[in-house]
Amino acid sequence: MWNIILKREKEISLSRQLFYSMKKLILEGKITAGEALPSSRGLAKNLSVSRSTVCEAYDMLITEGFVVSRQGAPTKVKEGLHLDKYHTKTITYETSQPSFSTDFKTGQPDVSCFPRYLWNQLLYKSCEKLQDKDLGYFTTAGYEPLREEISQWLFRTRGILAKPQDIFITTGTTQALNLFVQMLSKEGLPFAVEDPCHLGIIEILKNRKIPFLGIPVDENGIRTEQLENQNFSTVYVTPSHQFPLGGILPAERRAELIRLARKQNFYIIEDDYDSEFRYGGAPITPLYSMGCESVLYAGTFSKTMYPALRVGFVVLPPQLHAQWLHLRKYFDVQNPIIEQAALTEFLSQRKLDKYVQKICKLYGEKRQLFLKSILQCFGKEVCLLGDASGLHLVLQIPGVCFDEGFIAKSQAFGIRVYPIEHYCIRKGNHSDKLMLGYGHLHVDEIHQSVLRLYDFIMKNSIPSLL
Amino acid sequence: MWNIILKREKEISLSRQLFYSMKKLILEGKITAGEALPSSRGLAKNLSVSRSTVCEAYDMLITEGFVVSRQGAPTKVKEGLHLDKYHTKTITYETSQPSFSTDFKTGQPDVSCFPRYLWNQLLYKSCEKLQDKDLGYFTTAGYEPLREEISQWLFRTRGILAKPQDIFITTGTTQALNLFVQMLSKEGLPFAVEDPCHLGIIEILKNRKIPFLGIPVDENGIRTEQLENQNFSTVYVTPSHQFPLGGILPAERRAELIRLARKQNFYIIEDDYDSEFRYGGAPITPLYSMGCESVLYAGTFSKTMYPALRVGFVVLPPQLHAQWLHLRKYFDVQNPIIEQAALTEFLSQRKLDKYVQKICKLYGEKRQLFLKSILQCFGKEVCLLGDASGLHLVLQIPGVCFDEGFIAKSQAFGIRVYPIEHYCIRKGNHSDKLMLGYGHLHVDEIHQSVLRLYDFIMKNSIPSLL
Repeated sequence: MWNIILKREKEISLSRQLFYSMKKLILEGKITAGEALPSSRGLAKNLSVSRSTVCEAYDMLITEGFVVSRQGAPTKVKEGLHLDKYHTKTITYETSQPSFSTDFKTGQPDVSCFPRYLWNQLLYKSCEKLQDKDLGYFTTAGYEPLREEISQWLFRTRGILAKPQDIFITTGTTQALNLFVQMLSKEGLPFAVEDPCHLGIIEILKNRKIPFLGIPVDENGIRTEQLENQNFSTVYVTPSHQFPLGGILPAERRAELIRLARKQNFYIIEDDYDSEFRYGGAPITPLYSMGCESVLYAGTFSKTMYPALRVGFVVLPPQLHAQWLHLRKYFDVQNPIIEQAALTEFLSQRKLDKYVQKICKLYGEKRQLFLKSILQCFGKEVCLLGDASGLHLVLQIPGVCFDEGFIAKSQAFGIRVYPIEHYCIRKGNHSDKLMLGYGHLHVDEIHQSVLRLYDFIMKNSIPSLL
Repeated sequence: MWNIILKREKEISLSRQLFYSMKKLILEGKITAGEALPSSRGLAKNLSVSRSTVCEAYDMLITEGFVVSRQGAPTKVKEGLHLDKYHTKTITYETSQPSFSTDFKTGQPDVSCFPRYLWNQLLYKSCEKLQDKDLGYFTTAGYEPLREEISQWLFRTRGILAKPQDIFITTGTTQALNLFVQMLSKEGLPFAVEDPCHLGIIEILKNRKIPFLGIPVDENGIRTEQLENQNFSTVYVTPSHQFPLGGILPAERRAELIRLARKQNFYIIEDDYDSEFRYGGAPITPLYSMGCESVLYAGTFSKTMYPALRVGFVVLPPQLHAQWLHLRKYFDVQNPIIEQAALTEFLSQRKLDKYVQKICKLYGEKRQLFLKSILQCFGKEVCLLGDASGLHLVLQIPGVCFDEGFIAKSQAFGIRVYPIEHYCIRKGNHSDKLMLGYGHLHVDEIHQSVLRLYDFIMKNSIPSLL
């Protein structure tokens, strides 16, 4: 009947299959409004199934309102159920990314020596210890023991004095920036950002249609004097390692920033994306420690642990706590519990401290090799900026212009480069600079990668200047 | 000197302690601009530490720009570093929640019989199998094997035909709604929402300053005829189990909704927050299956697994895929990997199917007990709505008004109730209804809880009407 075919080997019960088939026929208008359904006995016989199978299917049709059954009358199909077939346009996407034999991407930590086995043990053990209440909607601020561990860790690694109740767990800096922007934007006032700047904050501002001012950056970081007497709600900075140019903001500019924030009544977002990786001493002390009443500090474990962990944190002035909790509740409620519990153990056993030491050494070696290769290939005519920390540095070749044409050609050659101009709001000031990430490269690949880049630049730029 | 006290037993090195102390003194103006630092040898002797400790501290001060050192000249403190002490106002919050001996909250699943041991095993095993690349920033769309498992699970449990590439992993419905609102809002056009409605979507719209229209709901769900010829960008619905009234949207209204969406060119957000829990047959087939080109379907594992898992998913029409990926990338990048990998196994081994069967039985028993207690206490004069599915039902007592005064009194009595009016946009139509969640109550608590509620209502309302 109606060409219904039921398959016995399927995971889906015969009654559900019958229900889906009949529903489809009704929507397509093949069983029409007002039509009486055959008796359950009759249809069962016709389809060689039990009568209860048909009754169940009819019950589902009744529940979902496809048919109506009144005592003493046959079950009939309801009115208004015919839907015209909809012709969807087929959309095809270019999903395959072009492949690169050499990619100088940044922000990609090397996870190959992450202590996977140990981490897995901690995951297991800390999950075992969780109570039922930890599996519920427990707290938007984050897992209490983790907030305490982060408080101690911030003090011992960066000299930040932050109470656990000032620390809020996030799923990373991108989320933190989203909530900051939502929290701090004031009708009609722009945000001030570094120029050149991390593209994440720019995209977040654009998505929310919030205007922004670019404040020029030099080799030491943001030029704080340019903030004076400007009207904006918030300034976004990366003082420990300016992204992308790499400067460390000097103390007098930090003090100036805090003074201006107090005087002009704005907030400072401090994005500390990779200050753990310093090759000539201890990590830089965050700006937060100079004026915690004006600074919203965002830290992450994506670089020190692994990116797919999705755990970060913010440190907030007390006057913003309530607003943060409200916005986070309606943003994504809270972090998952498992990673928070395991990270608590990882921190309390000082495993993160040890692992950061270990990878810092590894990145330091990579950096040395990278610097050596660049010197060997390019000689002394090029400049290197921001090489004291982080997972990338900036190569400046005076006289060369890394423009769209250069990028297109390099891509065709299998090399992916990241011109600083790409991160600039005001164009034209940094066209001779490339950002080169090396954190993810294997020690054995480094020289080859630099050599390929050198060869390519020599063939495609203005070699006379080199 | 300068009253600096260094502690040898601390986890922080002496050089870092010295650096922090000197930095503090400079910012406080106790070491003034232009002042020459003592020789490293002299300070070392004074503090009884090694000379290298002092040199390290001086290096940190130089790196962060607190002092300047020129060959042949003494190291001097820079200008402009003095920061006035800032007096922060102390803010005290009422952090302690009032406690309730009886709380009829909803959306709180009972996690006490979740197979913790099995889940933990799966976490461990699936983490072991992950590759290094899975720990990086891998994909904003979600873990591929999980998208495939969800595709199969949607078909076998709800009859949805959705390809894995139409499924995107989320951290839950709140996130999905945020992204939907961002994606679908059109300048000047309101959203249409059910009235009464889930407060999550209302708060999200308010946070983004997007206007909304309330569309009345009756015992069968949203009154679709009220959408005709109205101007809005998107309608938000809970067709499988209207929140909070509990109706199941009948087939003819579903068909009408799809026809209107095509004609008036709007999108439909289908929030399927708890359709797994049906006590009289199979789960309701989602609206998505009727017109997948117009519907954005949001599902979650918060209720079927546990809330702190933070894994959900959406099914999207192809024309919205690219925009979703862009917005998600700048929202929080991606989900953590661990839960995705373990859930993939949980689904593929059909453990979720079995667990849902089991808890459905448990919730079904709770519901029976709840209904029985209500009948025993309140008699037949009260109405119960939406009792066929989900984790809550609605109690209507004609003639009684559950107003603010009632709530305040009940809180003082230790009972937490949720009047339907609380979820209403247009007030005054549902003042005789209470939402009662029972999913989280223990079987042994149910009768006592209902009895307490009854006693309280009898004492504080209009008993003559009962």
